[in-house]
Amino acid sequence: MTATNAYSALNERFGNYFRLLAAARILYWDSQAYMPPDGVWARGEVMAAVEGAMHDLIDREDAGELFAAAESGRDALSAVERMNLPQMKRLWADAHAVPKELALKSSRLSTACIAAWREAKANDDFASFVKPFEEYLAVFREASEARAKALELGGVLYDTLLEEPDAGPGPATVHTVLRDLEAALPQLLAEVIERQKSWPAAIPFSGDFSAERQRELSYKLLGIVLNDPRKSRIDVVPHPFTLTLSPGDVRITTRYEPNIRFAIMIAMHESGHALYESNLPRPLAFSSVGLARGGTMHESQSLMVEMQAGRSREFLRWLAPRLKEAFGGDPACWTVANVLNTYRRVGEGFIRVEADELSYPLHMILRYKLEQALLTRELAVKDLPGAWSDLSQKLFGRRPPNDAQGCLQDFHWTAGLIGYFPSYALGAALAAQYFERAIADDPSIPARLGEADFTPYRAWVKPRIHERASTAHFDDIVRDATGKSFSADAFKRHLRRRYLEEPLG
Amino acid sequence: MTATNAYSALNERFGNYFRLLAAARILYWDSQAYMPPDGVWARGEVMAAVEGAMHDLIDREDAGELFAAAESGRDALSAVERMNLPQMKRLWADAHAVPKELALKSSRLSTACIAAWREAKANDDFASFVKPFEEYLAVFREASEARAKALELGGVLYDTLLEEPDAGPGPATVHTVLRDLEAALPQLLAEVIERQKSWPAAIPFSGDFSAERQRELSYKLLGIVLNDPRKSRIDVVPHPFTLTLSPGDVRITTRYEPNIRFAIMIAMHESGHALYESNLPRPLAFSSVGLARGGTMHESQSLMVEMQAGRSREFLRWLAPRLKEAFGGDPACWTVANVLNTYRRVGEGFIRVEADELSYPLHMILRYKLEQALLTRELAVKDLPGAWSDLSQKLFGRRPPNDAQGCLQDFHWTAGLIGYFPSYALGAALAAQYFERAIADDPSIPARLGEADFTPYRAWVKPRIHERASTAHFDDIVRDATGKSFSADAFKRHLRRRYLEEPLG
Repeated sequence: MTATNAYSALNERFGNYFRLLAAARILYWDSQAYMPPDGVWARGEVMAAVEGAMHDLIDREDAGELFAAAESGRDALSAVERMNLPQMKRLWADAHAVPKELALKSSRLSTACIAAWREAKANDDFASFVKPFEEYLAVFREASEARAKALELGGVLYDTLLEEPDAGPGPATVHTVLRDLEAALPQLLAEVIERQKSWPAAIPFSGDFSAERQRELSYKLLGIVLNDPRKSRIDVVPHPFTLTLSPGDVRITTRYEPNIRFAIMIAMHESGHALYESNLPRPLAFSSVGLARGGTMHESQSLMVEMQAGRSREFLRWLAPRLKEAFGGDPACWTVANVLNTYRRVGEGFIRVEADELSYPLHMILRYKLEQALLTRELAVKDLPGAWSDLSQKLFGRRPPNDAQGCLQDFHWTAGLIGYFPSYALGAALAAQYFERAIADDPSIPARLGEADFTPYRAWVKPRIHERASTAHFDDIVRDATGKSFSADAFKRHLRRRYLEEPLG
Repeated sequence: MTATNAYSALNERFGNYFRLLAAARILYWDSQAYMPPDGVWARGEVMAAVEGAMHDLIDREDAGELFAAAESGRDALSAVERMNLPQMKRLWADAHAVPKELALKSSRLSTACIAAWREAKANDDFASFVKPFEEYLAVFREASEARAKALELGGVLYDTLLEEPDAGPGPATVHTVLRDLEAALPQLLAEVIERQKSWPAAIPFSGDFSAERQRELSYKLLGIVLNDPRKSRIDVVPHPFTLTLSPGDVRITTRYEPNIRFAIMIAMHESGHALYESNLPRPLAFSSVGLARGGTMHESQSLMVEMQAGRSREFLRWLAPRLKEAFGGDPACWTVANVLNTYRRVGEGFIRVEADELSYPLHMILRYKLEQALLTRELAVKDLPGAWSDLSQKLFGRRPPNDAQGCLQDFHWTAGLIGYFPSYALGAALAAQYFERAIADDPSIPARLGEADFTPYRAWVKPRIHERASTAHFDDIVRDATGKSFSADAFKRHLRRRYLEEPLG
């Protein structure tokens, strides 16, 4: 068998694997947005059957041979194919890295742990969560060790859980950037809080926040960011996410809620994810190499839209009168000065997803430190609330009033998403690095954002980030786009500028 | 390998086959109801991947052995398992009955034929449809012959296309019932038209037929029929259908349109399908034996709700003032007498899906006769418009004004649904046989329908029809429920009673 034939056979299988993944995604989307309540009992079975079929596609007996044949003739492959091959191989290796029994046990304990978490959070009762979480954590650790061994990933276990070496910045950069932020941000946060003491109290947003009006505004914002109504739609779910079925069908989901300050930015954030996905190259759809370049890159694109562009003075100046138009209510709350005051205000609340731009990465650092300690057993589950509270004091200068607003606020750990939080903080930092360079390359961007015109913004990100998909390594994309390796420098400059220098109004 | 083991292995595979079928259905539902326009290009690929995975599941090398092992020890299986086994085997045999090349060619020509049909219908241009339909028909015939041969189905080709022997009434009954109706209905139709000449002209329904009001009424009707809002939902699509994902998730779709007379009955019709599906036994979900018992049985359940119960004097008397409440408009159009006049009126229009109860089976007979002639080549495609017109004259006493309202009105033939039309007519006849017996068994049913209370109705159909799923043969279900074999007798009695005896108002 020639290398090209072997590659084609693999590529076809993995293509169908990704097509089935799209089917799994629509099943999930439907379960969150539209499924009648009595559909629950069977939906899990249907999802499992699709996942089983995905597994069957890639974990075939002849896969090892095909990979060997394709690798032995790499020179016959194109550059894109040579990028794709190891990514397919990694998926294949991952598919059987954890013994089936162990994977099933882990999945079962995770389900129980999620249920216990939901209950514990609702009742602010951490004690009831200790045992299920301990049990799940033990089997999660065991499965992760088995995976690390099978994939021959050496070093510290936590590092093997950070993004794949080929998909993201890699463990060394993750640790460097987070340590840098941990050293700089608590002090900066304290300075900004001090500065904001002289500001007038922000007037709470008020008006008609009905689902209908929120829906209209969300579609307007999505239209501004994406500029292509044929590619997307918005649906309402309990926990917003963005869903890609193909580059022609990227859906955002949102939640219409009384906290309108937050709801507006959900729409911007998810539109940023959608813009990335919609610009991925169609000829590479349904292949590894056609995917977005990992979690950090993805968060950089949502946060670049939400935090860099969406919370820029220019865009907020445009937005303020539109919010007044959309919601009515007290005109005083929709002045530019008050909208800026609202979106610049830092150091309030304890909830990660609602955090201000400055506290946001500190939330991730808190979780990043505690999840490592949990994984190495340095920290016992029962001691988590105390450790969370102490670290909050150190990073934010205050403690959450209870566990529901503290260590019980996120579902991630109960679902095995240990090692994922860092990508949110790194995404924020990378967004700043991109945006700083984008403005240098095209100084018209801010003024155009002031007219709600994302055209030059899109023109900058599309060829440099989105269209490259996974055909280049993370570092190469960052360096080609910004001329520098990834670091927290631009982000720190950005935060000082926006929060210590920029005036209100 | 024991028979029980072999059966279990097969049952697990087919279970996953039906679970993947649910995934394919949600992909289709989404494509009709929610998919953004640019999602089209990739959706076909995703659907094909799911279908490929379904095929891979059941068409495995060891399937023949497993069937042989299970059959050789049939006595060790339960009664339900013994029903299930041949149904699985039939699916398996069907999966490779048509050579792959031929199946692909047929599917490609069908796609082209559907596109040509859409164009031809829009332009009332039959000439442009001749060649694509001839080409598709030729390969459809070839594929059907290959299938009949592989499945060792002897006799006339058309009969092999009628419902599976185990799923429906079988070819002999189909022919008998349709011949009986063909002999009786044209004369009856003429008599009824004569009788209705003395009626006042029906006042057209008028009011606010906005999507919002139609939606509200549709949910109300669905609630009345199904009495379980946790199991269903309604979405808007161009061509309404009912979708089963599991007995806990049966969705109806509808179209909000100015022809409100029709729109109301779409909701009743689809609710009838949904009631059947929602009552299928959950322990048998995702197995052959847990499915509804074929097309005729399914149509009998939608038409029993729509035509028998929904258009009964009692229910229409309840409905009339609710329509007035729902839509406003001219109060004179919502009197009981005018609502009855509207729903009893026969012999108007040429469109099958909007046909009155008496013309409805004649529409099927027309298609049933012409599709047989097309299949045997007795009728050339180019001569279809003339044959359609002549047969319309004979059956309905009038000719359609053009082909768009004549032989181009249905998509079925372009999609290979030759042999399916009879089940609509048979379903109407079977619905009458069931309803006649239901009323005899429980004389309170009509009065309760007059209060929009379907409780006794549901109590009759559920154990006798719905819960039996495919655990019994078609004939046994009909005979056990009604004490008689299936015939058109009750239907003819019903039509004479409703259309020649019942007064207006």
